[in-house]
Amino acid sequence: MHKQNKLPISKVASAVEPFHVMKLLGEAKALEAEGREMIHLEIGEPDFPSLDCVHQAVTDAINHGNTHYTPTLGLPALREKLSRFYHDFYHADVAAQRIVMTPGASGALHLLLTALLNPSDKVMMCDPTYPCNREFVNLLHGEVLSVPVEASTGFQLTAELIELHWQPGIKAVMVASPSNPTGTLIEQPELLAMANFLSEQGAYLIVDEIYQGLVYERAAETILANANLPDNVVVINSFSKFFGMTGWRLGWIVAPEFLIPALDKLAQNLYLAAPTPSQYGALRVLESDALAALEQRRQIFEQRRNRLYDAMMSAGFKIPCKPAGAFYLYWDVSELTDDAEAFCQTLMLHTGVVVTPGKDFGEYRSRQHVRIAYTTGDNELLEAVRKIQSFINNDG
Amino acid sequence: MHKQNKLPISKVASAVEPFHVMKLLGEAKALEAEGREMIHLEIGEPDFPSLDCVHQAVTDAINHGNTHYTPTLGLPALREKLSRFYHDFYHADVAAQRIVMTPGASGALHLLLTALLNPSDKVMMCDPTYPCNREFVNLLHGEVLSVPVEASTGFQLTAELIELHWQPGIKAVMVASPSNPTGTLIEQPELLAMANFLSEQGAYLIVDEIYQGLVYERAAETILANANLPDNVVVINSFSKFFGMTGWRLGWIVAPEFLIPALDKLAQNLYLAAPTPSQYGALRVLESDALAALEQRRQIFEQRRNRLYDAMMSAGFKIPCKPAGAFYLYWDVSELTDDAEAFCQTLMLHTGVVVTPGKDFGEYRSRQHVRIAYTTGDNELLEAVRKIQSFINNDG
Repeated sequence: MHKQNKLPISKVASAVEPFHVMKLLGEAKALEAEGREMIHLEIGEPDFPSLDCVHQAVTDAINHGNTHYTPTLGLPALREKLSRFYHDFYHADVAAQRIVMTPGASGALHLLLTALLNPSDKVMMCDPTYPCNREFVNLLHGEVLSVPVEASTGFQLTAELIELHWQPGIKAVMVASPSNPTGTLIEQPELLAMANFLSEQGAYLIVDEIYQGLVYERAAETILANANLPDNVVVINSFSKFFGMTGWRLGWIVAPEFLIPALDKLAQNLYLAAPTPSQYGALRVLESDALAALEQRRQIFEQRRNRLYDAMMSAGFKIPCKPAGAFYLYWDVSELTDDAEAFCQTLMLHTGVVVTPGKDFGEYRSRQHVRIAYTTGDNELLEAVRKIQSFINNDG
Repeated sequence: MHKQNKLPISKVASAVEPFHVMKLLGEAKALEAEGREMIHLEIGEPDFPSLDCVHQAVTDAINHGNTHYTPTLGLPALREKLSRFYHDFYHADVAAQRIVMTPGASGALHLLLTALLNPSDKVMMCDPTYPCNREFVNLLHGEVLSVPVEASTGFQLTAELIELHWQPGIKAVMVASPSNPTGTLIEQPELLAMANFLSEQGAYLIVDEIYQGLVYERAAETILANANLPDNVVVINSFSKFFGMTGWRLGWIVAPEFLIPALDKLAQNLYLAAPTPSQYGALRVLESDALAALEQRRQIFEQRRNRLYDAMMSAGFKIPCKPAGAFYLYWDVSELTDDAEAFCQTLMLHTGVVVTPGKDFGEYRSRQHVRIAYTTGDNELLEAVRKIQSFINNDG
């Protein structure tokens, strides 16, 4: 049966890293099947379902027969509405024709990088980062240039770091604000400095704003609101996180106008069009009453962040950067272990708490970090901290 | 604004062929906006919306909060149900764990080829063929080996042709039954002979069964029902065509078991999971009452095929192969023009009938062929033939 020698798979497929947390999750699910209670703090997905008004809008749309393909770039009304959303909420001028609807932000990242990268082109990104970014570049036979980042820069690239690590052949730099796994932001002047430096080099700045909207103690932002932004900036976004529409698989790209024809042609081949019902749902979720409901959810995430962060700090744990966005804490476990993956597994077996080892996000000091997702209720979060604390006290 | 010299796009993006019919379609829409009546015979999409019972099932699922990510390989219940569907309707033993849910058949083709191809690997396919197949191979820096096919083989590859054109470095051969643009089938003994020959060569056979179910005057088939099938066969399928769920963007792969871990890892990165509501809709569309409703639609397509084919033949037009499946006629216009693209444009301007020039499907005799899609009602089809006939008589 197993003829892998005779029927080989591609080198890129062999080389793709699995999500290491999936192994833990598999074991956790086996334990749950045996009746063990687990607390899941590894899940990068809001625990809320999408909004009722979205469900109603989708129901209406499909009952009206809106189940055919949309144009490849997306439903014109949705691209228009996103354009107005940028205007009304971010005071950003984003023409509808610069917006491309995609099957999730995954589809957006893959489409965009396919449009930009030749084999051997280099893409700079920080370490730790969202793991798929590396894989997308690898799949396109590009070269990932990982720049280790420290808590001192909020685990983010800076214009200075980009300049310091600059080398020929870099086609694009990828940043995320807020970031997964650290929840940290990049300030707008810093982003603008990056964009300007990269523009001089003839390189793109790709800004992942997937967690836009999920920020705490400050207003949500977009790089697109900056005046005099050079035309090398591309933004990736998603209806999954703030808008709570994960399973609907809908994201978007805001690209400079000259990229749109290439994105259109490529998207015709790669995915034809984003899911139609999801696009009707997204039209509804941009209405003000829906946005108000999402604001209440944002406040719940903020409260969770505060409680979890406070509990972790009170327990004497090290969170070098209090996250200002997303729904993650990046926990420095260097005082507890130098093998975060083994630590996560022991922790899961002894306490039932599932967290994600740093290894999923990079190499640099990844054995000393763990990502905690606060995508579950307050009580479970606090219970998890108590269990972790008790485990460590007994273990130490 | 337009800094393409400074900010280049990738070579693959520059090289991607647009769908040539899109230019015609743009002009047709402009004419429609001016009040002109057009008949659209270029659309590769059933004109029916998805079934009401699908809409109800989706509504129920989303109202029950089923809007989160599914596992990457798909909803386990749906993979199980497809496995039973293969058993009950095709007498094919297809284990659920061999089935991978994908965002449309586009997502399936792209995922699969990413798992198989290294740069410079060759993929054999016939000319004419579904145009995206060539582009997927190009995007992965593979090499397309196009084999011209004639009406004498039903515009399909045969085991003999594959052997005749065989050369080192071929990783896979792609066939489609029924085929787009010709609507022709490949008989099962022929497919089995291909699979066996390719298995000896250590190469894959990729069988596009996207139009499975839409066949006329015979029963629908799958290569997977063949006993003693070697393990180099991968099947691509879709809920878009027979199941009428285009905008839902849901397809699937049936792969040999040894490919599943690679497909899983790649899919985690490329698209994370197929749309959740669509997967709940698909669960419903595989129920027997839904399948009965789809059978009625199949009969409508069959009736359209018969009327359109008869009308074209009566008008003296040349359809070398009466199609046994899909919803296309491949019209040989060599007696009328040696520039099918110009012919399609003139036809559209003079008659309002929009058809697809052969150029969209390949090079070989593509200037002498036109694809007609019968994805519109009988009356429009017959009206279109009358208009074409009258145009040609006056023009000649």
